[in-house]
Amino acid sequence: MTATTPEQSPHIKVWWEDMEVGQVIDLGSLSPTAEEIVAFATQFDPQPFHLSEEAGKASVFGGLCASGWHTCSLAMRLMVTNFLHQSSSLGSPGLENIRWLKPVFPGDTLSLRQAVLEKRPMSKRPDVGLLRTQWEMFNQRGDQVLHMEGYGMFRRRSPAT
Amino acid sequence: MTATTPEQSPHIKVWWEDMEVGQVIDLGSLSPTAEEIVAFATQFDPQPFHLSEEAGKASVFGGLCASGWHTCSLAMRLMVTNFLHQSSSLGSPGLENIRWLKPVFPGDTLSLRQAVLEKRPMSKRPDVGLLRTQWEMFNQRGDQVLHMEGYGMFRRRSPAT
Repeated sequence: MTATTPEQSPHIKVWWEDMEVGQVIDLGSLSPTAEEIVAFATQFDPQPFHLSEEAGKASVFGGLCASGWHTCSLAMRLMVTNFLHQSSSLGSPGLENIRWLKPVFPGDTLSLRQAVLEKRPMSKRPDVGLLRTQWEMFNQRGDQVLHMEGYGMFRRRSPAT
Repeated sequence: MTATTPEQSPHIKVWWEDMEVGQVIDLGSLSPTAEEIVAFATQFDPQPFHLSEEAGKASVFGGLCASGWHTCSLAMRLMVTNFLHQSSSLGSPGLENIRWLKPVFPGDTLSLRQAVLEKRPMSKRPDVGLLRTQWEMFNQRGDQVLHMEGYGMFRRRSPAT
């Protein structure tokens, strides 16, 4: 098992106690290329509008655009690199309300923002707390491209007594 | 725009009218390797338990296991190849209730099943109908590893009158 105390885990900067309802954190940005969009789609979501500019133009999206799963995976990359790696995260049991609000095109700059919606202790595990967070991703024009709500389990700095 | 009539779309075998509430369809299976699990995680979800057997053993999961986003993406691959490609699908606005119920380990054989939960016309588009479906993925031991509910828009064989 992984270390369970602050002394054993000096890399952890953010514990369950450090997060508050209403807190909003910017988690950086990244920009998928056409090659990355096509590579992801070839492996996981080979629908025509994710595979070529030509087919994208012939679709409702108006151009080559990223698989929704690619967009979610890019959000996860920002979440892991810029937040979870510094946190006491223990993983997630699931997500709610994924919405792909606008297409993501090659070269778009996608910025992720996390807001804490809800926070509660876990009754069965005094060393762990639960968070419900909202993930919002925007493109460089300020259009929201992705919304989802996630549950996360985080270790507590000090177990409940 | 893509073709909109059955005459223009001979590759489409399944239209909105062909799907019924309660219908269950098996959508095949696939098996991720350790290399694929690590490659996906390196790019999108570099948490230790998705990157090495050693870190996986030290985690709550007990071994190297796939990113939840990788599991969803594998489900999508089966959905596209074995269903959407033959259907009049126009894409999806989103999903609900994603649950990662058990870890996915290298070499697991993952089978996907889709059930139709709800079906309704779209009031604003007489040529399109909406489906709400349940996706369930099981491993070779019969344990369910993934649950989600998706919305899909499908072209109708004949527009509503």
